Amino acid sequence: MAVLIEPKILKGFRDFLPAAEIARRTLVEKIETDFRLYGFVPIDTPALEYTEILLGKGGGETEKQVYRFRDHGDRDVALRYDLTVPFARFVAQYRGELVFPFKRYHIAKVWRGENSQRGRYREFTQCDFDIVGSDSAAADFEIMLMMRNILRDIGAGEARIRINHRGLFNRFLEKTGVRSASAAILRAVDKLAKIGETETRRLLADIAGTEGAEAILTYISAGGTYEETLSRLAALSGGESPETERLRLLWRNITDAGAADSFMLDPSITRGLDYYTGIVYETFLADDPAIGSVCSGGRYDNLAGLYSKDRISGVGASIGLDRLIAALESRGRLAEQKTWARLAVACVREEDAGVCQTLAERFRRAGICCEVLLETGAAAGKTGEADKDAEKKLTRQFIQAEKKGAAWVIIPASGAAAGETARNLALRDLASRRTTDGLGVEDIIKMTGQLPD
Amino acid sequence: MAVLIEPKILKGFRDFLPAAEIARRTLVEKIETDFRLYGFVPIDTPALEYTEILLGKGGGETEKQVYRFRDHGDRDVALRYDLTVPFARFVAQYRGELVFPFKRYHIAKVWRGENSQRGRYREFTQCDFDIVGSDSAAADFEIMLMMRNILRDIGAGEARIRINHRGLFNRFLEKTGVRSASAAILRAVDKLAKIGETETRRLLADIAGTEGAEAILTYISAGGTYEETLSRLAALSGGESPETERLRLLWRNITDAGAADSFMLDPSITRGLDYYTGIVYETFLADDPAIGSVCSGGRYDNLAGLYSKDRISGVGASIGLDRLIAALESRGRLAEQKTWARLAVACVREEDAGVCQTLAERFRRAGICCEVLLETGAAAGKTGEADKDAEKKLTRQFIQAEKKGAAWVIIPASGAAAGETARNLALRDLASRRTTDGLGVEDIIKMTGQLPD
Repeated sequence: MAVLIEPKILKGFRDFLPAAEIARRTLVEKIETDFRLYGFVPIDTPALEYTEILLGKGGGETEKQVYRFRDHGDRDVALRYDLTVPFARFVAQYRGELVFPFKRYHIAKVWRGENSQRGRYREFTQCDFDIVGSDSAAADFEIMLMMRNILRDIGAGEARIRINHRGLFNRFLEKTGVRSASAAILRAVDKLAKIGETETRRLLADIAGTEGAEAILTYISAGGTYEETLSRLAALSGGESPETERLRLLWRNITDAGAADSFMLDPSITRGLDYYTGIVYETFLADDPAIGSVCSGGRYDNLAGLYSKDRISGVGASIGLDRLIAALESRGRLAEQKTWARLAVACVREEDAGVCQTLAERFRRAGICCEVLLETGAAAGKTGEADKDAEKKLTRQFIQAEKKGAAWVIIPASGAAAGETARNLALRDLASRRTTDGLGVEDIIKMTGQLPD
Repeated sequence: MAVLIEPKILKGFRDFLPAAEIARRTLVEKIETDFRLYGFVPIDTPALEYTEILLGKGGGETEKQVYRFRDHGDRDVALRYDLTVPFARFVAQYRGELVFPFKRYHIAKVWRGENSQRGRYREFTQCDFDIVGSDSAAADFEIMLMMRNILRDIGAGEARIRINHRGLFNRFLEKTGVRSASAAILRAVDKLAKIGETETRRLLADIAGTEGAEAILTYISAGGTYEETLSRLAALSGGESPETERLRLLWRNITDAGAADSFMLDPSITRGLDYYTGIVYETFLADDPAIGSVCSGGRYDNLAGLYSKDRISGVGASIGLDRLIAALESRGRLAEQKTWARLAVACVREEDAGVCQTLAERFRRAGICCEVLLETGAAAGKTGEADKDAEKKLTRQFIQAEKKGAAWVIIPASGAAAGETARNLALRDLASRRTTDGLGVEDIIKMTGQLPD
């Protein structure tokens, strides 16, 4: 006998069994429904691209994480590690065909060969939405509002969205005289929550001197209401500026939309990524802030600079699907179902499959998921034997249906086709183990409450 | 200035712009809805697996096509080239946790680095559905019925599904004395439509001798009604057998379900793949048979033999999404829309974004897709200037909305919040270029027929 291969998957990768996959899909479908309601359109790009496209002129940390190899034509190729870089390439390549401001969403898998720590995967789904080709505060606001409303719609509860303006921080740094090292400073500030104030002060002092570090810590700790914070940041950064005006405009939008409770101005939010230049956001769940930001993003002024001379600005965010799922799961708010079909039709004799399918079809045409149950294992017996243990087989199908997550089993009248108006069906309630006779299709739809949406 | 990287993708790979991606998603969503209506559940597996899992002990032709490389831990890994092999591994790995008969669907991308001919892609989506753990004819029938109904539901019209039984053909070959070379014969027969009868005869003669070739050609050309064909095949294969009984049972199911027009028994259908052992199917569109089979599959008796001693039998099919899209497109039956949002709200001043979003939100909460239009390019002017060219900006937004695929633009009363009952909205019909004043949200929902499903 041939030696068996052990069935296993690579570390950091995941299989999704039906219940987990149904939960993921239900969540993603809700998110996608919202994207569409806001007029966002989907795109798709290849999983595999030229390495040069994905890494540009060498990406440091990123480069080490990328799955990279030579393809059959000896081309240097790599699996995408995020959806932003392919999007930048996409916008540069099709800028003549797209209608700007272009609002797109992209939900797809990405791959990173990094050390797989707890909760870090080598294959995961990103869920990005962006508006490119508009500098308007209305675009910044739309992304913010969507983050709040999507989290609410998927059952994650109220969002606390912390916003900041990178440009204003840079203006402050310029005034303080440490502008040149701003990327390093942004990264240090971004670590505040993780490493604490003392360590951040030390890091900042190395870059900006002791005095600079103190000034930066004062700036990033400015608290109070949105408007109070804004006034203090304006003063620290040399007075009113286009950046403070933008932040004021956003506050007006927020209050006009009745969304003041969801947003706060937090000067310590910087986002580590270099390419943000304007508003940046991080989103926490009011009920579960400890899991960290579940949706973040910001404004950039040159998305596709690697591929095009045209400066393409935009604003966008990315939903952390895995974190959200963990949060929803821990609070019992994740869909917990093993199947969509709560209703099943018993079919104990294989020669009845045509009749049983015709019956099930009447529910399906009404938009109700309805499975026809099948015999397991070896081929079902001949007609004579089948009749003999029809009862036993029916019981086995009840057990099977319950294990699959169905709530009711319909038992068609033996051998008879279910007519359009005939009341010759029985319904087994799997939880109560009660069977009701003399029902028609409409009766069952009403009794089970399986009305389509 | 830095040298730009030319934005391009690998040959055989595709970007999907919004209209194409909307069409694909609409189609896939319809297919998925049907899978769920039949009680099928989704799973997902990694794109990247151990090469040993995907290729077993070396896969000949397959091996050459697989994207294979060494990962960061020097593991021999490969991108999946189909969904069947990962499914086999999945069933072997989780057979203790799954409820059998297990009905699963899997819609996901696969990769093959083959020479990309016309219409052949190196990255494409497979759409598989299988029932494993049942030998019942009822399972064979369910897959057949689903192929027919799914094609009807997605607007591909009537299906002509050609079925055959591999086991019956083998029984015939055994009787003819050429059983040992059956895999080679199956492959030769599978080429009949492509290479013609003369060439097939030559191929078969090489394997089975001149007499054998004639006998095989007689067998595979047996025509007539389903029942006539079945009688002839029974006679040629040595009389009634479990295989002819299975085919008779299926015919009973087909006729009971009123689906006789959709199915025919065609002994020339063999499917090239070695692992089929029972019923095999190929599906053609009645209106467009020339594009070839758009959905095919069959029954196998040992899905996971590489990974498990348990024999796991099943039956399944795979929908050829790219072919279907081509067929639907050529007949104008593919969704042709650039956006889901037929309705848009004009927003010419960025300070009105809060008010405009609140208005749009009323449509969205009713399930209607509604985009808020934004200014393009450089930041919108200050309030004073904005008022001056409000008219010009509004016209630009009409043009933008039309290009995006919207049909109507709502113009909120200048500066005023749209109250719950106020009739202070105007509606621009982009096709007729007519604007109607004095409308409320409900009026607009009625006028535009944008009632949610």
